[in-house]
Amino acid sequence: MYKEEFVLEIPYGTRDFLPQEAAEKRAIETALAGTFAKWGYDEVVTPTIEYLDTLTIGNGSVLEPHMFKFFDKNNRTLALRHEMTTPIARMAASRLKNADLPLKLAYISSVYRYEQAQTGRQCEFYQAGVELMGVPNAAADAEVIALAIEGLQQSGLQNFQICLGQVAFINGVMQQVKLTAKIQSAIKYAMEKRDLVGLGNIIDDTDLPEGSKNLLKQIPLLHGQEEMLKKAYDMIVNEQSKRALDNLQEIFNLLKVYGVADYVSFDLGVIRDFGYYTGMVFEAYTPGLGFPICGGGRYDHMLSDFGNACPATGFAMGIERIMLALERQGLRKAMVEKDIYVAYQEGKASQAIEKVMELRLAGKTAELALRAQDKAAAQKDGQARKCKQLVYVE
Amino acid sequence: MYKEEFVLEIPYGTRDFLPQEAAEKRAIETALAGTFAKWGYDEVVTPTIEYLDTLTIGNGSVLEPHMFKFFDKNNRTLALRHEMTTPIARMAASRLKNADLPLKLAYISSVYRYEQAQTGRQCEFYQAGVELMGVPNAAADAEVIALAIEGLQQSGLQNFQICLGQVAFINGVMQQVKLTAKIQSAIKYAMEKRDLVGLGNIIDDTDLPEGSKNLLKQIPLLHGQEEMLKKAYDMIVNEQSKRALDNLQEIFNLLKVYGVADYVSFDLGVIRDFGYYTGMVFEAYTPGLGFPICGGGRYDHMLSDFGNACPATGFAMGIERIMLALERQGLRKAMVEKDIYVAYQEGKASQAIEKVMELRLAGKTAELALRAQDKAAAQKDGQARKCKQLVYVE
Repeated sequence: MYKEEFVLEIPYGTRDFLPQEAAEKRAIETALAGTFAKWGYDEVVTPTIEYLDTLTIGNGSVLEPHMFKFFDKNNRTLALRHEMTTPIARMAASRLKNADLPLKLAYISSVYRYEQAQTGRQCEFYQAGVELMGVPNAAADAEVIALAIEGLQQSGLQNFQICLGQVAFINGVMQQVKLTAKIQSAIKYAMEKRDLVGLGNIIDDTDLPEGSKNLLKQIPLLHGQEEMLKKAYDMIVNEQSKRALDNLQEIFNLLKVYGVADYVSFDLGVIRDFGYYTGMVFEAYTPGLGFPICGGGRYDHMLSDFGNACPATGFAMGIERIMLALERQGLRKAMVEKDIYVAYQEGKASQAIEKVMELRLAGKTAELALRAQDKAAAQKDGQARKCKQLVYVE
Repeated sequence: MYKEEFVLEIPYGTRDFLPQEAAEKRAIETALAGTFAKWGYDEVVTPTIEYLDTLTIGNGSVLEPHMFKFFDKNNRTLALRHEMTTPIARMAASRLKNADLPLKLAYISSVYRYEQAQTGRQCEFYQAGVELMGVPNAAADAEVIALAIEGLQQSGLQNFQICLGQVAFINGVMQQVKLTAKIQSAIKYAMEKRDLVGLGNIIDDTDLPEGSKNLLKQIPLLHGQEEMLKKAYDMIVNEQSKRALDNLQEIFNLLKVYGVADYVSFDLGVIRDFGYYTGMVFEAYTPGLGFPICGGGRYDHMLSDFGNACPATGFAMGIERIMLALERQGLRKAMVEKDIYVAYQEGKASQAIEKVMELRLAGKTAELALRAQDKAAAQKDGQARKCKQLVYVE
């Protein structure tokens, strides 16, 4: 019945987690679940499969080409969820519609992207995150940023940096210089991709006055510590951008109270690759990884797409990315060892079972040999099976 | 942008886990992960998506009509995993091929079945289980049964029963009375479905002697305690069936040593609905639920379908079924309460943040109000948010 070699392969962009990797994944997920709970966030679980119409609500349609799609038995189009914010917004607008606000929800879930093998991108990966719905103020934004920082710390990371931006700053500037919607989109896309050359070309091709062109070109360069906010303030004249900077200052003041300001710097070029953000946005980076391990922001309009107008803020972190960052920083957990290997000589199986159950009851991880063996073999096997100690029943 | 009402729906056969349900799910999964680890089983994680060719290896093809299928960008057929034994067999035959035997692997995963809405069956559900590969003996079978019992206990269940059978008993009887393969299949199918009337008709339509017909009809009635084994022994003359009964006796003797024999009774009509079982099979039932909450058995041929001949035994339990059984038995955990609600008067936000972080550091679950409020409002909100205690900063 053994068919062909490819039955042993797994699809492009998916992965197996062998014991060591699965143990690291569970340790991180358990730490995050505990942290979210400790901050008063309730975990929820949504279906892996949703109606395509649900997932493409609002801005999700941009990602439709990157969704796994198929049909239910009534020929309605289904898709694997590509992120968690949309399903949770759907849940908030339906079964949780009458729950007291604010909703503080957390998840730890797999998400899916339909990708070409060549891109090297993952088709299935794991995300943990929170959504805080019903609070429009800086206190809510500061709480989710502080929670993201605590989550990364509890996952074992020590060295990471939060880059904090505010999409209303850029929107204000673009309205101030009176750009068409089409050019605004092109500029945002170039900023999102950090394509400074492309951005320069787009700006140079406009008939804006030199001053406005220079202002636009400088936005991606506006990064740094708190004093940068003042510099940005002096560059702009529109109220929307000024309010955005005030909002960042207010959030940052609260992050100082949380004691996490050292993790945070500002980057007004941070846009995030979802169109739905309306206020502060942030990304977390670690040395040596060229992509963020965590990202989030405020999205005050998305819930109204589900008929449930409500301000919201949140973040998602990538479990595999955290695992990779831990590995790069030499912080991978040691291989999961077991405490005790219980082996036995011929005729002592019952006594060995009694012993191993006694050890487990006492809280030990204990593996039972499943056939009689001599003591030398038991010692060798116990080591091979990564047990710290041998109990030999004779 | 609010489209139509159906964007708020989820596909047939899927479900949302709201906070209470998600907390119960995580509590059960954490208990099971801890139990599996304590017994020396290593958790692994496989992709949700596999090649259809992999999942239909061996007996899996019977379930192909019940798989969600779609294509990758190279037009190869993918499917959502319908159970976990096949993916783990695939992993054991590839990346773990050179690992020391026995392999003791565990999983906690979602699985998928493509079903008509009308059937009321779940299209997505969660399973936890173990696979023990490389040990052919009764000690291995007894370990997985004892582990299943401990897992159900640690999940919070008190009242359940394991029905233990042995497919070699039935196979031996059918060979003894010399049935064609076609009639053997029909009889097994009727036994699997517990369709005693259909079974009687199939048997009556054969030209077997009356004695053989009666023997076959009695198999589903062979259930009870240890003494039933002796009764069954006296009914049969073939060696295969006798060895099957000896095997059950040996397993049961070990389960007595584990101290779990009270949970176990015998049922020689238990077949399980997968064709791949070759030895002992078992199912766990609870009062009031008409379907098993756990099932498993020995499958010594499946791994050779992946080019990796190796005996194996294991089980899978249904997380939602355990949740349902707990609810039916009045054992649902109380709603997850939080310890403390930290609220504050105008101007005291910073002090409130300091307080809530101090409480969390001390191990408390503590929710922060995200706007100033008076003490009466804080008391009301703290209760509504299910916090046991209020800390009001003024």
